[in-house]
Amino acid sequence: MAKKIKAGIIGAAGYAGVELVRLLSTHPFVEIEAVSSVSFPGEALSKIYPGLRPGVDLILDEGPEEMMNRCDVIFASLPHGLSQELAENCIKKNILFIDLGADFRLEQEEDYRDWYGESFLNEETHKQAVYGLSEIFREEIKNARLIANPGCYPTSVALALYPALKAGLIRGDDIIIDAKSGVTGAGRGLSRNTHFPECNESFSAYKAGAHRHTPEIEQTLSKLADKPVRVTFTPHLLPVNRGILSTIYCGCKEDPEALRKCYREAYDKEPFVTVLGEEEYADIRNVRLSNSCHISLHFDKRAGRLILCSAIDNMVKGAAGQAVQNMNIVLGIEETAGLSAIAPAF
Amino acid sequence: MAKKIKAGIIGAAGYAGVELVRLLSTHPFVEIEAVSSVSFPGEALSKIYPGLRPGVDLILDEGPEEMMNRCDVIFASLPHGLSQELAENCIKKNILFIDLGADFRLEQEEDYRDWYGESFLNEETHKQAVYGLSEIFREEIKNARLIANPGCYPTSVALALYPALKAGLIRGDDIIIDAKSGVTGAGRGLSRNTHFPECNESFSAYKAGAHRHTPEIEQTLSKLADKPVRVTFTPHLLPVNRGILSTIYCGCKEDPEALRKCYREAYDKEPFVTVLGEEEYADIRNVRLSNSCHISLHFDKRAGRLILCSAIDNMVKGAAGQAVQNMNIVLGIEETAGLSAIAPAF
Amino acid sequence: MAKKIKAGIIGAAGYAGVELVRLLSTHPFVEIEAVSSVSFPGEALSKIYPGLRPGVDLILDEGPEEMMNRCDVIFASLPHGLSQELAENCIKKNILFIDLGADFRLEQEEDYRDWYGESFLNEETHKQAVYGLSEIFREEIKNARLIANPGCYPTSVALALYPALKAGLIRGDDIIIDAKSGVTGAGRGLSRNTHFPECNESFSAYKAGAHRHTPEIEQTLSKLADKPVRVTFTPHLLPVNRGILSTIYCGCKEDPEALRKCYREAYDKEPFVTVLGEEEYADIRNVRLSNSCHISLHFDKRAGRLILCSAIDNMVKGAAGQAVQNMNIVLGIEETAGLSAIAPAF
Amino acid sequence: MAKKIKAGIIGAAGYAGVELVRLLSTHPFVEIEAVSSVSFPGEALSKIYPGLRPGVDLILDEGPEEMMNRCDVIFASLPHGLSQELAENCIKKNILFIDLGADFRLEQEEDYRDWYGESFLNEETHKQAVYGLSEIFREEIKNARLIANPGCYPTSVALALYPALKAGLIRGDDIIIDAKSGVTGAGRGLSRNTHFPECNESFSAYKAGAHRHTPEIEQTLSKLADKPVRVTFTPHLLPVNRGILSTIYCGCKEDPEALRKCYREAYDKEPFVTVLGEEEYADIRNVRLSNSCHISLHFDKRAGRLILCSAIDNMVKGAAGQAVQNMNIVLGIEETAGLSAIAPAF
Repeated sequence: MAKKIKAGIIGAAGYAGVELVRLLSTHPFVEIEAVSSVSFPGEALSKIYPGLRPGVDLILDEGPEEMMNRCDVIFASLPHGLSQELAENCIKKNILFIDLGADFRLEQEEDYRDWYGESFLNEETHKQAVYGLSEIFREEIKNARLIANPGCYPTSVALALYPALKAGLIRGDDIIIDAKSGVTGAGRGLSRNTHFPECNESFSAYKAGAHRHTPEIEQTLSKLADKPVRVTFTPHLLPVNRGILSTIYCGCKEDPEALRKCYREAYDKEPFVTVLGEEEYADIRNVRLSNSCHISLHFDKRAGRLILCSAIDNMVKGAAGQAVQNMNIVLGIEETAGLSAIAPAF
Repeated sequence: MAKKIKAGIIGAAGYAGVELVRLLSTHPFVEIEAVSSVSFPGEALSKIYPGLRPGVDLILDEGPEEMMNRCDVIFASLPHGLSQELAENCIKKNILFIDLGADFRLEQEEDYRDWYGESFLNEETHKQAVYGLSEIFREEIKNARLIANPGCYPTSVALALYPALKAGLIRGDDIIIDAKSGVTGAGRGLSRNTHFPECNESFSAYKAGAHRHTPEIEQTLSKLADKPVRVTFTPHLLPVNRGILSTIYCGCKEDPEALRKCYREAYDKEPFVTVLGEEEYADIRNVRLSNSCHISLHFDKRAGRLILCSAIDNMVKGAAGQAVQNMNIVLGIEETAGLSAIAPAF
Repeated sequence: MAKKIKAGIIGAAGYAGVELVRLLSTHPFVEIEAVSSVSFPGEALSKIYPGLRPGVDLILDEGPEEMMNRCDVIFASLPHGLSQELAENCIKKNILFIDLGADFRLEQEEDYRDWYGESFLNEETHKQAVYGLSEIFREEIKNARLIANPGCYPTSVALALYPALKAGLIRGDDIIIDAKSGVTGAGRGLSRNTHFPECNESFSAYKAGAHRHTPEIEQTLSKLADKPVRVTFTPHLLPVNRGILSTIYCGCKEDPEALRKCYREAYDKEPFVTVLGEEEYADIRNVRLSNSCHISLHFDKRAGRLILCSAIDNMVKGAAGQAVQNMNIVLGIEETAGLSAIAPAF
Repeated sequence: MAKKIKAGIIGAAGYAGVELVRLLSTHPFVEIEAVSSVSFPGEALSKIYPGLRPGVDLILDEGPEEMMNRCDVIFASLPHGLSQELAENCIKKNILFIDLGADFRLEQEEDYRDWYGESFLNEETHKQAVYGLSEIFREEIKNARLIANPGCYPTSVALALYPALKAGLIRGDDIIIDAKSGVTGAGRGLSRNTHFPECNESFSAYKAGAHRHTPEIEQTLSKLADKPVRVTFTPHLLPVNRGILSTIYCGCKEDPEALRKCYREAYDKEPFVTVLGEEEYADIRNVRLSNSCHISLHFDKRAGRLILCSAIDNMVKGAAGQAVQNMNIVLGIEETAGLSAIAPAF
């Protein structure tokens, strides 16, 4: 067998980081060369996550410097603001840099400043970033050296609206997104609303109309519609570990069958997107732990609205899985390599 | 102490029925005189629900006939179609009849036929029915002998929209309701999608744009708005036992402060409705096992939309609790009697 | 109606504290006069726990000093070591002091030092403490001014073994306790193992053979058996909010029917203890949110062992509920006052 | 690449069956040739389990006859009593038969009759059956044509006790097993106690001292100890989807370090068994969806007892995963083939 690609993971002790470890540990063409964490330098990753034993034996380094000398591709899962310099250094060294954080997702510095409170370190670096929504921007991704891996909510939303917006079957000026995410979306950090007794058997919205994924969603939808799109986006915290379901509403006078046809054609050849049948509903259960996106279409004929349900695993297609998919695309290897696991039935 | 009111519960072995038993078992002015169930005649209710022991010792009768001779008020929690004749008989005997099913909720026979496939048995009986949304129709309820207890979803939605619609602060022609209900809403009957391994860690919509509570919601909202209202209503199954959260979207150009003021004034004196503060979100956790409704208001200024979150316990304010509240109103006793339990913190 | 007893709660923002608030808020003879918290002085308790709204409107004071001038009974739910001085002061002022912490549970200072690392502040105060396992020590409790409210695990275990040990039907030298507790047992403080994604769908033992409730269990069982009892005690963390199930194993050659009879007789008149029937199993579901203890007896005839299952709500009978029960006993009011809520069916 | 082994799965629509599909769908040397189900003949398996889409496209046949002409290995997951004839036919046709049911687990017909109420169809077939506890009976398995795949509880228990019993470090005459299983252990069939609202937030024992896995456990432990072993075995239903934790108690005077050493040595080379460190506890979370078994050792020095915690995924190492492991052993391919997935961190 040919020599394996060497991958490094920065922020490997976080949830997206350890999910990358899980996926890459069975990748046929890639091996994990180094993992790092500022919180647990020197510690075995399997001490923090005993589920890695036996099988995965990795020690966390503190920093990314050494990693850059040894790796062909580096994944970074860091709080926003910390990836910009790393990306620049990787580009200089011709290392593929895949950023799972938010630093390169927004094209306009103004948006980045408004929503994240940070500035672009180097405009040139940002111009090189390719937004890694694999199914939609595959061609651009192929030649990328710096990939802005999409946010979890934006992935579920953009995949759901892509065919209809692209084909002009919906206007796109009245889109409402009611999204629900499993608790891993809030990350590994402890917080009051993820304390088990206050999260279990609970359910509420948060940051209604004010979540940072809003400009990212609008940026992508505007591109697809080829005109400015504004959405109302309300996320909710769902008391499950994994999964996002986005329920999306928009006015639509189209014939249901024409819409279904449009969706089937758009995704017919995609290995990770399934358009469900008429009587079926997208369910997070059916995409859990897989890189799949399930989309179902429903019609409120009385009100003249299309209702889209889109389910992904927020940690796989919404983070680590799509990052691996993007890496595969750049490397020119099978796009499903390392991602062939199907969702467990339970 | 004065003699207690005697209550009977038809369908007491179902979820709404046993919830009535729980609430009435500590009611200061009412005692449970009889309970019935076609499925478990002769059986001790505490055999089916061991949590009733010690404390509640009731044997299920088969039918309601004998019950009518002994009770002042009868609650019925039955599949649709089965309450019409019972209600008629109770009215004749001057027994207060509170129907937790759907038979008397829709005023137009056409709607009832379209959505439930049944006809009105006796138009006159239906005319006597009062829709028991306590806070909104309290005056009519006071004199009722036949109460159509509202559905769980419609209760959460109508309470959320009532102040704004009544005051004309929203147009009401573009309302979208994304609702999420705990699994008890599906009842005690076994089904594939309530089988624990397929429900736990799962989440999906169902009956999008086609749920039977849609005409009930529209009927109430149309009254409040004093014009025909059409909504898009999508329910979801939430993997928790209790609670409904409805997230409601509508265009709104009003000043947030004016809207908040309108809501606070509408519900200021209501013992069971709380309008939350600016930074707070309605959470099913905070109304669980109580008769409360929590409402929070949010504004998507960019898109010009009002987002309302409304949380109730589907089995209390959404069923048995509101039924008791309605009984209290008719009997002229304290409206909170038997309903003073607050939501446990966890 | 007579003047109500005035109660104060120290540590009211913690889980046991807010549970006391919930129970006392509907107590017919007691009113909450003051609540305190060192963490949230000056804050509304209903800000921290929105489920208290509407209905409970209490502001947290910082300290207990003022409280002592206004209250007839003070409940304290504090980390160990902090109740000793408070108790002494209350006794001096003739205020009933009910300690939900561990400071007065162990009679031997040596045990307290070994397991909690603290010394007795005043031996005399400790001598006045009565161990508040209501059903077993009711007579002593009646005259107490200082009550050591039992731990949650010890309550479930002692109630399960009491009849058999008392009657000498089991030897008591080979008792193994495999206990499982809901997550509220770990309190309100954030921790890694109560972070939702790492607690949900998880299950493990902790502190096997080394939990601080072990000496408390042995102290009580030794009294009941009238000889030293040693147990093996292994607690587990159960991914549910509330409830403890203790499964207890001991050698037993007795006739099952004799044992059942012994249990029924012991608890026949108890309003909060139910001995289940032959085919039934104690389930935390059936005692949740109630002050009940459900006990079921099972026999492994092949191995000659008695298996006892004992279920309580760790926050009610295992903490706040039993504290209220003890207060009722001391005050000479109905023992079930404020505690008549039955377990919801779901 | 060499031609792939052809596998057939009888009872593929059940939980163990679909888990086999999931595991074999990524097996490098095996392909699924046929699947059957008496309940859903002719239906697409991905219609019943939408999580299989896209990726797995299999149609359920009604019966196993045709399957026998096309497959090299057949897995059967059937109610007890139904595998005996199938096994006989497979042996005749020289097809490897791996039975995930109970028909061939008990060596004594008397035990089979006592606990399952069935007779041996053909004593000779039963004599050929090898009990497939991979790590313990690997040598016998290598040459097997008929494998009795162990029950889930017995797997967790035998792996936990094997080193100590084998080395004679525990006596084995006082073993108590307190086991807790996720709900998938109850299978796909609907039942009252797996109805979400009655299972969620619940916890209880069942079949204490009377579960059918008891004789299977005793048979294996007796072999390991080389003398008759009797155990007390109490299973509990845990409100999670997957996982078994067995907490095992036995008298033990051995030095903890000697025991730890014995365990480490026994499992040092095993790819699927991990002996945890001193401060660690086996947790179902850390083996979920993997073929791993985690074992932790704890000592109650005061009582002179060893406490073993053993965690497996009941559907993987406790069913489908071990079946694949056994197939790999017989086929002489890498034992971890198709089983290299590690437990997700959440």
